[in-house]
Amino acid sequence: MGTKLGEDVNAFTGNWVTQTSFSPPLVAIAAKKGTASSDGIHDSGVFSVNVLESGQKDLAFAFFKPISRVGNKFGDVEFYTQTTGSPILKDALSWFECKVVHEYDQGDHVVYIGEVVDAGVHRSGSPMTLQETGLFYGG
Amino acid sequence: MGTKLGEDVNAFTGNWVTQTSFSPPLVAIAAKKGTASSDGIHDSGVFSVNVLESGQKDLAFAFFKPISRVGNKFGDVEFYTQTTGSPILKDALSWFECKVVHEYDQGDHVVYIGEVVDAGVHRSGSPMTLQETGLFYGG
Repeated sequence: MGTKLGEDVNAFTGNWVTQTSFSPPLVAIAAKKGTASSDGIHDSGVFSVNVLESGQKDLAFAFFKPISRVGNKFGDVEFYTQTTGSPILKDALSWFECKVVHEYDQGDHVVYIGEVVDAGVHRSGSPMTLQETGLFYGG
Repeated sequence: MGTKLGEDVNAFTGNWVTQTSFSPPLVAIAAKKGTASSDGIHDSGVFSVNVLESGQKDLAFAFFKPISRVGNKFGDVEFYTQTTGSPILKDALSWFECKVVHEYDQGDHVVYIGEVVDAGVHRSGSPMTLQETGLFYGG
């Protein structure tokens, strides 16, 4: 998942996400409270979700720790921006980006409900599941 | 998923769910607006989530249409209640039940965020995925 961070961009691994409406297209995510990622979504009001492919465990794990952006890369990971300015990973299967329409700040994560304002598919394939990572929580 | 409906109980198939906090344990679900299920959660302030096992497609599909409760069964499907009064399906792999702590009513589904107040495991196994049902939406 990604967001804007002032004039910069930010990305983090996340697995708490679900669609919540067709019309308008709404999605809920949860981001760990007090992190740069969560504060960035709160401040910018936008976020992106990049759907990884089965087998892209290294890509998922790359964002467990903060990675500095240099140009259009986080480390070796290329991204671009489109409608909201949130980073879209070139190697993701597909992506969507949202404007935050609601926020629920209780518990150790903040829930952001976003309206999908743009989306795209880079290629078809099977999405990564949390199960294949061997984890019970991905951020 | 299940809820109370006045003095009665209700169950419906749902696939829009995600955890949103560890402490307290919070979960977000979305239920179709204007349905008995969604109104029941709104009115009672409680709901249950029953995790089905891979292969239990018939059980998932049984709740696409309203099923009348007779005694402790929806059709052939046995249930019991525990802490909140929401139905817990005997054949589900595992379950948890929640008290609603927040509601976001926009779009064609209502988002309910619930605090998990009780949970249990009937047996171990692989949870059903939406992919194996061949559907892109399960209610």
